[in-house]
Amino acid sequence: MSAAIAALSMDAVEKAQSGHPGMPLGMADVATVLFTRHMKFDSSRPDWADRDRFVLSAGHGSMLHYSLLYLLGFEDMTLEELKNFRQIGSKTAGHPEFGHAKGIETTTGPLGQGITNAVGFALAEAHLRAKYGEELVDHYTYTIAGDGCLMEGISQEAIAFAGNQKLNRLIVLWDDNGISIDGAVSLSDSTDQLKRFEASGWKTMAVDGHDMDAVDAAITEAKTSDRPVMIACRTTIGKGAGAKAGTAGSHGAPLGAEAIKAARESRGWGHEPFDIPEDVLSDWRTAGTRGEAARIAWESKLAGSSNKDAFEVQMTGDPAAAVAALGDYAKKVASEGKAVATRKASQNCLDVINAAIPQTVGGSADLTGSNNTKTADLGILDAENPAGRYLHYGIREHGMAAIMNGLALHGGIIPYGGTFLVFSDYMRGAMRLSALMEQRVIYVLTHDSIGLGEDGPTHQPVEHHAALRAIPNFHYFRPADEVETAEAWACALELDAPSGLALTRQGLPTVRQNADENLTAKGGYVLRDAEGYKATIVATGSEVEIALAAADQLESEGHPVRVVSLPCAELFMKQDGKYIADTLGTKPRLGIEAGIQMGWGELLGLGGVSWGFLGMEGFGASGPYKALYEHFGITAKNAASKVRGLIEGN
Amino acid sequence: MSAAIAALSMDAVEKAQSGHPGMPLGMADVATVLFTRHMKFDSSRPDWADRDRFVLSAGHGSMLHYSLLYLLGFEDMTLEELKNFRQIGSKTAGHPEFGHAKGIETTTGPLGQGITNAVGFALAEAHLRAKYGEELVDHYTYTIAGDGCLMEGISQEAIAFAGNQKLNRLIVLWDDNGISIDGAVSLSDSTDQLKRFEASGWKTMAVDGHDMDAVDAAITEAKTSDRPVMIACRTTIGKGAGAKAGTAGSHGAPLGAEAIKAARESRGWGHEPFDIPEDVLSDWRTAGTRGEAARIAWESKLAGSSNKDAFEVQMTGDPAAAVAALGDYAKKVASEGKAVATRKASQNCLDVINAAIPQTVGGSADLTGSNNTKTADLGILDAENPAGRYLHYGIREHGMAAIMNGLALHGGIIPYGGTFLVFSDYMRGAMRLSALMEQRVIYVLTHDSIGLGEDGPTHQPVEHHAALRAIPNFHYFRPADEVETAEAWACALELDAPSGLALTRQGLPTVRQNADENLTAKGGYVLRDAEGYKATIVATGSEVEIALAAADQLESEGHPVRVVSLPCAELFMKQDGKYIADTLGTKPRLGIEAGIQMGWGELLGLGGVSWGFLGMEGFGASGPYKALYEHFGITAKNAASKVRGLIEGN
Repeated sequence: MSAAIAALSMDAVEKAQSGHPGMPLGMADVATVLFTRHMKFDSSRPDWADRDRFVLSAGHGSMLHYSLLYLLGFEDMTLEELKNFRQIGSKTAGHPEFGHAKGIETTTGPLGQGITNAVGFALAEAHLRAKYGEELVDHYTYTIAGDGCLMEGISQEAIAFAGNQKLNRLIVLWDDNGISIDGAVSLSDSTDQLKRFEASGWKTMAVDGHDMDAVDAAITEAKTSDRPVMIACRTTIGKGAGAKAGTAGSHGAPLGAEAIKAARESRGWGHEPFDIPEDVLSDWRTAGTRGEAARIAWESKLAGSSNKDAFEVQMTGDPAAAVAALGDYAKKVASEGKAVATRKASQNCLDVINAAIPQTVGGSADLTGSNNTKTADLGILDAENPAGRYLHYGIREHGMAAIMNGLALHGGIIPYGGTFLVFSDYMRGAMRLSALMEQRVIYVLTHDSIGLGEDGPTHQPVEHHAALRAIPNFHYFRPADEVETAEAWACALELDAPSGLALTRQGLPTVRQNADENLTAKGGYVLRDAEGYKATIVATGSEVEIALAAADQLESEGHPVRVVSLPCAELFMKQDGKYIADTLGTKPRLGIEAGIQMGWGELLGLGGVSWGFLGMEGFGASGPYKALYEHFGITAKNAASKVRGLIEGN
Repeated sequence: MSAAIAALSMDAVEKAQSGHPGMPLGMADVATVLFTRHMKFDSSRPDWADRDRFVLSAGHGSMLHYSLLYLLGFEDMTLEELKNFRQIGSKTAGHPEFGHAKGIETTTGPLGQGITNAVGFALAEAHLRAKYGEELVDHYTYTIAGDGCLMEGISQEAIAFAGNQKLNRLIVLWDDNGISIDGAVSLSDSTDQLKRFEASGWKTMAVDGHDMDAVDAAITEAKTSDRPVMIACRTTIGKGAGAKAGTAGSHGAPLGAEAIKAARESRGWGHEPFDIPEDVLSDWRTAGTRGEAARIAWESKLAGSSNKDAFEVQMTGDPAAAVAALGDYAKKVASEGKAVATRKASQNCLDVINAAIPQTVGGSADLTGSNNTKTADLGILDAENPAGRYLHYGIREHGMAAIMNGLALHGGIIPYGGTFLVFSDYMRGAMRLSALMEQRVIYVLTHDSIGLGEDGPTHQPVEHHAALRAIPNFHYFRPADEVETAEAWACALELDAPSGLALTRQGLPTVRQNADENLTAKGGYVLRDAEGYKATIVATGSEVEIALAAADQLESEGHPVRVVSLPCAELFMKQDGKYIADTLGTKPRLGIEAGIQMGWGELLGLGGVSWGFLGMEGFGASGPYKALYEHFGITAKNAASKVRGLIEGN
């Protein structure tokens, strides 16, 4: 049966004249064992909640997965799709793309992401199993990872985290072929991978990846482990493909007629390209519905379970109750008008959210007390208490982000995780995938400017507002006070996309007196208007306070000024043109943000109005935060002076 | 003597009311052994080329380092500076900042960077030792790393790379205190670190970090190793500080009077804050010049060495010969007018550069054939041939970037390294530090748009042009042809700052017929003018070809159009206002770039001129590249249509 995978993979790559045949040829045997003897799924119900999850971490081997999905009878994956491999509009993109076809659990390709997503899947399973019992939640997560995945640093974060969590339903099949793009792996690595995994508490095994019974036995044993399992599958990349077999030459380019002929012959496969004989296809299709009875039995169990309603609520992920509670909370804090750091405001919001809905699972990359991500009623989610809802991710930002992607993709969980905004640099690879996959992953990004003070330029974000706004589908919120923080959380919960909340370390006054409507959902709005206004100041987050102080100053001089708060530039730019124009007004505009100017000119210059900007021009410095704001000139005085210049120049 | 470090560290944190006393108290004993018995240096000549390098990877423990520098008599580090810890303008920033004071070899704070920089330092030493002999190059690299450094994924990349390279002059002192910010390390990690390092070929030892003779013996043994060495130093964080000792409470906040009193008493230290008794200071100062004789002897050896001139040329890093050769090469290719992918053009330039100067050390994160980073005459730099000049970094982008920072900081090496542009996301943490430290590190970023084709959206940069331009001090080049590629390389070699070269996979025509002047050094310039021009098209890289085709089309319709090539927006915006205005002209402007619009509006709208943009609005897709350009509408036809609209709307 594995020959069918090999043949289809070669054929599709050859037809596209683009792709990676080496990995599918090398791992066809392992994948055949996994999908025909172990994986629990029903290809007619790819969304079955209790299915085993499969993640192709070595995403370049996408044809392995597409071949499997076709052979197993997943409706989305037709022979036509295989023939359109790597063409625009096909479900068979160069790398597996979540959302293109059922059966693809996550987008992979950037190495190391898949194995870390898989940790998230397995963690979700452990958590939900603890909450709802094995009756409803009882599945494994399998991932095929290559040398590239294991060399990427993020894999260490995944391995160490999974080992500590004792995720025994996680089984990694390492495609141990000894080859990377540059040649032998030994050119760049001589790590004993088994020993490395063992060092983090994994069970390990090593098998000949072409000995299907040995692979079968290893997976069977793995399923009984009390720890996560890594099975090293010794394989030959491009197996059978003549001189290209066992070399980097089979990795990332069509094999060509000669090598394809050799590979077919070595498997006794005499069929035309894309031709799968009826009997072979029939065997595969039977394997594809092997899990039907289990699926039906599970549905009965669910129907009769006392946990049915709770489980379904958990899995829908509806945030309505939390959004409503946040609305009430926003009204309360608007009326109280306290001064509070937005990181603390965020924690107050989390108190509300975590009590209102069961799906949130929070955490921090070892900055819990600084990110204010933990609330009182969340137990710690660890090997002893998987039903807990708070994760100590360790000092692993990239791992945290990719694990959160896995938690969200699994279903039933709304993950949020914290670190300092500046360290979004460490996890951008995974944040981009949150956005590409449109996953509701919420990044709590505190210490969002020079306002963090003494830790200095390595810890002070400057370019990060722009850099995160640049990611398509990502929503970057920078709330000005507790009301906007509550509104931003409500937006983040309701969006089918990732969000980042940039929050202050320093205290901020409440600037909104009214919370009847979620104005943050519009991205920007007139916070304070002035009759006969001569200029508009647009500011975000901690700089809204400065904008208001500048407006006071200017007003006292006879220059009335409008102040616009812009908590989410992306949402603002999605409003209709009239709202945008009406909000910004027709007078000169000054933007204020403790970051670089990039992106601001386009917004401020809309309609051809003259504009200025007050922010950072380079890296920050170490010092007390008030002194830094003075030092870098981000003050009400300078803002007023710039506005005066704009008014006079008009 | 170690009590002096502890006292000064506590005193400075207490005075600043900000900082991290726990680590200096825990590691004072280890650091004292290292600096008084092992480190080879002369505090009166902190720039001595053959000094041992010390990297405080756990950068939050900065007061440990500042205390050492003061006690050892480094001129830059006065008692006054210690008293100004974490204040604006002091040399004693919150985290060690390269360039603030001699003796600080690199900027640390973002965890995992320092240990990876240290790999770069040790690699530079091995390389230069192989080239110039032990007579001139014979030093160790020591780094103190904490649990955070070891949990960050980048550390795995560093460890595996160093093990494979057998960097036996690299000695890691792990501050094994069992505590992270959230509490016990066991909350998030249970990795057997010794086993993990051993898995990658390291020698490991474990000692009581407060037993100074044991530490001494371990370092002595480590210096004779044939492999890199990790010494686990079991310590108590915040040692002696009353109830705070051994807890996260001592990590990142002032200890307070009570704990300070306890810590002083436990060390028998009865002196006032910042008061170091004469005899103690004298002992330290003696230690600080322990290396004077060795330094003088080394200077004599250098003076008498047949390698003197070559060594000095190597260490100055003067790129003049390469820049001159690139100028000649640019003229040659301008006259030939061939079509070539800029990644291939870059390789041609590297042929020129690597032959002209000895300092370049190239490499790739396992994409050598795709990044075109290897040239014929570079041997492979590995354990068998450390004099080689090409590195197989493995699939380790972040590690590569931080190792390159170390290579550059060591002196004598101009590092360049390649990966796909989209994977700059993986190494942004280290790229930002290249920029903050103003290091000449050159990033070769190929496959710079949807033009890479079939690999799809995970591999297609869209937001990366903006995201990299956003980093202060970073220079992002996107050359349009082989001439501009040669010019961009010349700029990158001459800048005291990092550069990124965004290069195409697909072939591009030569658009520059004249290379008498490095026009890329101006950032942007009029590539093709037209009398009575009605609009200006500004484009970068592969889209310059489209701009020219659109101009042809428009000209044929009676709309003469100017075309500006913008290979480096940052350099362009640094030109004087007149040059910028003259180049852009006074007519409507269209920007074209296969990326998002962010940042373009500000440039195109300069002077209040109307403008438009043709680029990407979201993620890419998988397909042949020409089909993708059509699909996303980045075509000469659409460009011409947009320009027509701008002209007519004017």
